[in-house]
Amino acid sequence: MLFKQITIIGVGLIGGSLGLIAKRKKLVGTVIGYDRRRWNLQKAVSMGVIDRYLLTLSNAVEGSDLVILATPVGTFERISRAISPYLKEGAIVTDVGSVKGKWVSLIELQMPEHAAFVGGHPIAGREKSGVEAARDELFRGSVCILTPTPKTDPKAIKKVTALWEKVGSKVVQMEPSVHDQILAAVSHLPHLIAYALVETLNHPTIARRDPARFSAGGLRDFTRIAGSSTEMWRDIFLLNSEEMVTMIDLYQETLEKMKKKIIDKDGVGLLEVFDRVKAIRQNDIG
Amino acid sequence: MLFKQITIIGVGLIGGSLGLIAKRKKLVGTVIGYDRRRWNLQKAVSMGVIDRYLLTLSNAVEGSDLVILATPVGTFERISRAISPYLKEGAIVTDVGSVKGKWVSLIELQMPEHAAFVGGHPIAGREKSGVEAARDELFRGSVCILTPTPKTDPKAIKKVTALWEKVGSKVVQMEPSVHDQILAAVSHLPHLIAYALVETLNHPTIARRDPARFSAGGLRDFTRIAGSSTEMWRDIFLLNSEEMVTMIDLYQETLEKMKKKIIDKDGVGLLEVFDRVKAIRQNDIG
Repeated sequence: MLFKQITIIGVGLIGGSLGLIAKRKKLVGTVIGYDRRRWNLQKAVSMGVIDRYLLTLSNAVEGSDLVILATPVGTFERISRAISPYLKEGAIVTDVGSVKGKWVSLIELQMPEHAAFVGGHPIAGREKSGVEAARDELFRGSVCILTPTPKTDPKAIKKVTALWEKVGSKVVQMEPSVHDQILAAVSHLPHLIAYALVETLNHPTIARRDPARFSAGGLRDFTRIAGSSTEMWRDIFLLNSEEMVTMIDLYQETLEKMKKKIIDKDGVGLLEVFDRVKAIRQNDIG
Repeated sequence: MLFKQITIIGVGLIGGSLGLIAKRKKLVGTVIGYDRRRWNLQKAVSMGVIDRYLLTLSNAVEGSDLVILATPVGTFERISRAISPYLKEGAIVTDVGSVKGKWVSLIELQMPEHAAFVGGHPIAGREKSGVEAARDELFRGSVCILTPTPKTDPKAIKKVTALWEKVGSKVVQMEPSVHDQILAAVSHLPHLIAYALVETLNHPTIARRDPARFSAGGLRDFTRIAGSSTEMWRDIFLLNSEEMVTMIDLYQETLEKMKKKIIDKDGVGLLEVFDRVKAIRQNDIG
């Protein structure tokens, strides 16, 4: 057993899946859930995701050896401040948020002397959100990024690493800012692009043709991406705005260049791009 | 039996699948294949996709009741001109190309008095290309767009419709230009976007981070789209350039607006977009 008692704050897809597998594998003694929605917590108990729930943050974290922040990233600072006075001696706080950067140091600042914070981000997800979507194999074969700082207690890093490895993740450490740059590229930009495409098809000039009837696989992939939790994506886009804007700028440049090739009927130039892209794909990106 | 003898010009994914199912369902007597690559035709014979092959266009179409153009769209005008003198009395020529527009009238112009052209586009595909990827259920449940003009012989439309219906497609008729506008939106723009994304990740500032290691589903959807035949996509982008550029312009506007919302930290504005997109998805787009 890695932890006698843990608290999951935000019992949705990620928090819920972690509770489910930690309980099934007996990695933890007791799993306590906290969420704004009582019906969600009741469902989580009946699914075997948590043992019991508490409706105030202070009560929920009291006595826990590990507290996992699994709400939308935008709530982390407020929650850290709220739970800080109630953390037990030696408690570890970690998160599963998709943005790190300056948030890691802001949360670190909220921690009392006797507790440690370790930033974490399991790269896993499904098209669906909510505790109903929780699966005990969600993290199998995935990568979990930890973003410790020079201040982070090495023992806390070791314990959080052990938890993620036991649920099936490969753990990689990197600086918070590098995490944000990579995630802007491989996840946040792709999601923005998908949202922008579907929003474009909503434009009256094309919407009146009822285009959905004529789409094969291509469009389905985009609408699937655009199907996840809207609150979560709002927070990610705003909190990682600097890296996002850098990536969007790069992307807009590329798109403009490709448009120019189309206008100039530059078939050779287009083929060069396609072949590069195909080579990347064959190197098994994604 | 719908046709005694048909010729498939370009025995790849689409042409091959059509041959396979037409033979299995006994919709045609003899299926003749033509392709630039002899090894490909030999494979097609061994897979049961065609009965036999011929290596010159003139021989390949002689005596056939239906000729199907299934090579990249950019070759259609040249091929139409080449086969025209060898078409039998009452022959029907059709195609499976992803761009219609002015090509339909150009091909129509090449046809002799005694033959008819019917533009067609089965909305079906797989991530893979080539005859090895041919499947007899490829068109099941798909839509096939026919783009007849006022000149098109109604009997020819009826016969081509019957073929597509028998292989499992729902047939819809529309004007060539409307076809191109819709396809630019639901297929050509999504592909361009996917190519541009992967090309962006190839930029040195991000490529040096080896981002592929940290991508979950989001990126995989894009690289899958970017995996199809490069020649085919070059032709599509160039031949449908007008509608493409109109759609890219609209998309760039949307993307710029979303970037502005991120820069302005306009969370409410982002949520409005996401909710609209989610509503479209729930209406079962794609």
